[in-house]
Amino acid sequence: MHIKRLITAAVLIPPIYFYITKLPPVYFSVLIAVLALAGLWEYLSMYKVEPVMLWSTMVLGAMILVSSVLAGMPSFEIFAFVFLGLAVLRLFIYGPENALRDLSAPVIGLIYIPGLVSYQMLLREAGAGWIIFLFGTVWIADSAAFYVGSTLGRHKLYPAVSPKKTVEGGIGSVLGGTGAAIGIKFLFSLPLSLGQTAVVGLVLGITAILGDLVESMFKRNAGVKDSSHIIPGHGGILDKLDGSLFSAPILYWLLIVFGANA
Amino acid sequence: MHIKRLITAAVLIPPIYFYITKLPPVYFSVLIAVLALAGLWEYLSMYKVEPVMLWSTMVLGAMILVSSVLAGMPSFEIFAFVFLGLAVLRLFIYGPENALRDLSAPVIGLIYIPGLVSYQMLLREAGAGWIIFLFGTVWIADSAAFYVGSTLGRHKLYPAVSPKKTVEGGIGSVLGGTGAAIGIKFLFSLPLSLGQTAVVGLVLGITAILGDLVESMFKRNAGVKDSSHIIPGHGGILDKLDGSLFSAPILYWLLIVFGANA
Repeated sequence: MHIKRLITAAVLIPPIYFYITKLPPVYFSVLIAVLALAGLWEYLSMYKVEPVMLWSTMVLGAMILVSSVLAGMPSFEIFAFVFLGLAVLRLFIYGPENALRDLSAPVIGLIYIPGLVSYQMLLREAGAGWIIFLFGTVWIADSAAFYVGSTLGRHKLYPAVSPKKTVEGGIGSVLGGTGAAIGIKFLFSLPLSLGQTAVVGLVLGITAILGDLVESMFKRNAGVKDSSHIIPGHGGILDKLDGSLFSAPILYWLLIVFGANA
Repeated sequence: MHIKRLITAAVLIPPIYFYITKLPPVYFSVLIAVLALAGLWEYLSMYKVEPVMLWSTMVLGAMILVSSVLAGMPSFEIFAFVFLGLAVLRLFIYGPENALRDLSAPVIGLIYIPGLVSYQMLLREAGAGWIIFLFGTVWIADSAAFYVGSTLGRHKLYPAVSPKKTVEGGIGSVLGGTGAAIGIKFLFSLPLSLGQTAVVGLVLGITAILGDLVESMFKRNAGVKDSSHIIPGHGGILDKLDGSLFSAPILYWLLIVFGANA
């Protein structure tokens, strides 16, 4: 598991790095849109959404993603249309029992995955460095949480949702996130002061855990462990995206607060 | 019941009519925002949302409505924030069981009510006549459905969701909506051709039923009959808003398609 994780990471990271930094922003947008569709599929399958609703939701998800690739962020109008369309579809294919549940996995899934992923497209537009910053900080925070937690972890963080997470791992995530943010800031000469970078890194160290816990909450609620097993040793696409999905809007908003170029 | 309906309508309609048409658009926006908050409260109470989530959702609903009053339509960013905020709140106040259900009544409620109501504010900005057109068409379609259905109704429309609705009532709704649309178009000299008006009236006659059926689906799913009993003989606020909530975005989009001034 451990070695498989490292090898997979070592093989996948360099080509992804060059793809993100050397090609125009739209290449990243298309890649992340495809991953978001795969993640949406995992999310809907996890909740065993019925085929007609599942496929309709995938089509709506693709519409949202295309609009984000073209226009930067989906408008609320698409979500109004999503709600109206899925509510009427739901009305005609099944009776009133579980109406809210059958609507909610699609609607929440569309906000959670295609919706939030649009922030990553905006960050890439602002500069490839912000994407490296986002994923680097979140993944190093995750890894720090994993290694600190598994060596020093004594106190459980939230066993009902994620039995292996510890308070020590959480502290590792925050420190690892802060360190990673500062390192990446200097490597890519990002326009943040040292103090601002430390604040952003600390916040992303926290949101990386929160994003993970929220995904665990959904998985436990749906009764599954990994969202799928597509990446050897790393679980599903959604398991890899969860921290960045949650952290991208936070990073985007913090950059606006700090007046950096986002 | 029947007489109470007519008397309540006769007392309430004239002051509302002058309020909508004689005062600047922001007065309508504030009125409909207050009604939307009341409707949101009914919706959340119907689903027995826990107090912390309920109050947080009301605060978020108020934020969405203030932003709509000021800016015309909420941005997707507010819904991204709503999702992130409520997901983290949900994570910390209860365990993973029913996570999706506890999140979905608030998130879907916020799209359904404060979100969709922003289209009514946009229509009022375009002209008070469109609000009269919207409510006049939907309510006359509703009344035609009720009177045609209760006198001529033989064939049930969708008994599992709404046991009293009939196919004959549905035809009444479509014909009533078309007639009402044409009448209101001439009374208010609205910039649509006769053919366009007939199409819009027909579509609103259909969406009035759909909006009603979707609200019935939610009510049956939650196990209640009326959303509340605040308006004598008319049920709750949400029962009065359901058709217009659903029809406002459709009217807005049709006016764009027809190049009318919306």
